[in-house]
Amino acid sequence: MSEQNFLIFGRNPVIEAIETGTDIDKILIQKNIEGSGKKAFALAKKAKIPVQIADKFVLDKTAGGGAHQGVIAYLAEYTYASVDEIFARAESKGEAVFLILLDGIEDPHNLGAIIRSAECAGAHGIVIPNRRAAAVTGAAMKASAGAALHIPVARVTNIASAIDVLKDRGVWIYGLDMNGEHYATKNYDGAAALVVGSEGRGISRIVREKCDFVLSIPMRGRTGSLNASNAAAIALFEMSRKLFPEGVSADRRQDEKWFKA
Amino acid sequence: MSEQNFLIFGRNPVIEAIETGTDIDKILIQKNIEGSGKKAFALAKKAKIPVQIADKFVLDKTAGGGAHQGVIAYLAEYTYASVDEIFARAESKGEAVFLILLDGIEDPHNLGAIIRSAECAGAHGIVIPNRRAAAVTGAAMKASAGAALHIPVARVTNIASAIDVLKDRGVWIYGLDMNGEHYATKNYDGAAALVVGSEGRGISRIVREKCDFVLSIPMRGRTGSLNASNAAAIALFEMSRKLFPEGVSADRRQDEKWFKA
Repeated sequence: MSEQNFLIFGRNPVIEAIETGTDIDKILIQKNIEGSGKKAFALAKKAKIPVQIADKFVLDKTAGGGAHQGVIAYLAEYTYASVDEIFARAESKGEAVFLILLDGIEDPHNLGAIIRSAECAGAHGIVIPNRRAAAVTGAAMKASAGAALHIPVARVTNIASAIDVLKDRGVWIYGLDMNGEHYATKNYDGAAALVVGSEGRGISRIVREKCDFVLSIPMRGRTGSLNASNAAAIALFEMSRKLFPEGVSADRRQDEKWFKA
Repeated sequence: MSEQNFLIFGRNPVIEAIETGTDIDKILIQKNIEGSGKKAFALAKKAKIPVQIADKFVLDKTAGGGAHQGVIAYLAEYTYASVDEIFARAESKGEAVFLILLDGIEDPHNLGAIIRSAECAGAHGIVIPNRRAAAVTGAAMKASAGAALHIPVARVTNIASAIDVLKDRGVWIYGLDMNGEHYATKNYDGAAALVVGSEGRGISRIVREKCDFVLSIPMRGRTGSLNASNAAAIALFEMSRKLFPEGVSADRRQDEKWFKA
C-alpha cells in the first residue's frame, strides 16, 4: 500500500473506529483470527462494512511492519477540523476552550501520544501546522490509541497566526519552553492554549514572543530535556486539574465522533 | 549486526556516551560527515576510541532502520545496577530514595522515555523485571536520549519480591492504577517508589496488593487511558516537585556515569 492511503491497524483502534461510526471502506482480517479479532469481524459485519479475509503475509505487507494484530481498516483521508469547530466543541460543553498547539512535532508517535493525552486531559482540540510537521497518519492514529477519533485536530498554515486569532478570542497562551515560570505554581483559569515545540528545537522564537506566559518544567539530573509527548502530558494534566476542578467530566459517556472520514 | 550487540546511534546519544566516559569498543562514522558528526569524530579521537569511516549503506544496515545520523557506537553489553546501588546513590546525595518500578513495560521506546523522565525527575534508579519485559537495548537507550547513561537500571527476578525488600527498607510504595487516590492531592514525603504497570494490563494483582497507596490520574474524554510513559511522567513529576521542594538539584553539574560497560 502506498503511504497516501489512510489505514488504521491493531484490534482496539479498529474496533473503536467501527463503534464510533467512522466511514470505513474495507476491513482486512487475518485468516483464522481469534479473540478480539473475532469481535472486530462481528462488528464489521453488523455495520455492513466489507470484510476481506487474507493470509498473514498480506496484512504484514499492508501494515508495512506495523503491529496490525490481524486487523487493518482502510479509511478515506483523515478529515481535519477547523479552529472554529474546536471552539464550538467547548461551547457545546459549556466550558472555556482548552486546546494545544504543536509548533512542529515531527514524530508521528509523539503526535499520536499527545493527541491521546490531550483527549484524556479534557482538551477540546489540537492545532498543528500543515507543513514541516507530522500529520495524522495511520501511525499517529495508532499511537493515539484511537483518541484521534474523539478529538478534533485542526491544521493551520501558521502557528503564530493561529495564536493571534486565539488571543483575539480571549484565549491565554501558555508556551512550554526553557527559562519560564514553574508550570505547577501557576493558576490556570479561563480559556487556555498550551503551545509545545518540536522535538529538536522547541518552540520557535516568533511563537515564544507571542505567548502570554512561558512555562517550564524544572528538571533534575543530567539529561536536561523530556520527550516532547511526556513534557506535553505533564503540562496538560496540571492545567486540566486546575481548569476542571470538578473532576472527571460526564461527557465521558457521550458518544462523540470527531473523526469525519 | 545481530541484535545481541549493544549499539547506540544518533549524534547526541553517542556524544553523550563519549563525554561520560562510557567504555566504547568502536565508533562507526559516515564518510564526509558534517556538523555535530564532526564533533563526535573529534571527541572519539581525543578519547582514543577507534573510529571506522564507512559508507552510508553500512551504517544503515548496522542500525537496522534506526535513525543513526551518521554515527554509531559499539558498546559492551549494558551492565545493570543492583537495587543496593540505587540506595547508595540516594545516600551519596543525602536524599531519601526515589525510584520507579516497571511491572512489565514491553515497548523499548516506552522504557527509554520512562528512563529519561525518571532521570529528569531526579529519581535515583529504575527497577525492571528480567523476564517478559523490555530490556535496555539500543532502541531503549536511544529513546532515553542517553539518560540511561546517567541513572542506574536494576533488573530483578520478581517485582513483587523487590517491593517486599523496599518496604523492609522503609520505602513507601505508590502504585499507578485505576480506581485509586488522586495522584495530585497526595503529599509525598520520605523514601518513595512509583510502580507503573505494563501497556496492556497495568500492574498485576499481586503487585497492586503490595502497594501502600494506589494512585490514579483522573481522566476526561473517551480514550480512558494514557500511554504508559506519559502516565509515568505525570506521576513522576508530581512526586518530584513534592519530594524535592528545594527545586533543581546541584547534582545537575556533577559528572555522574551510570552506564558501566
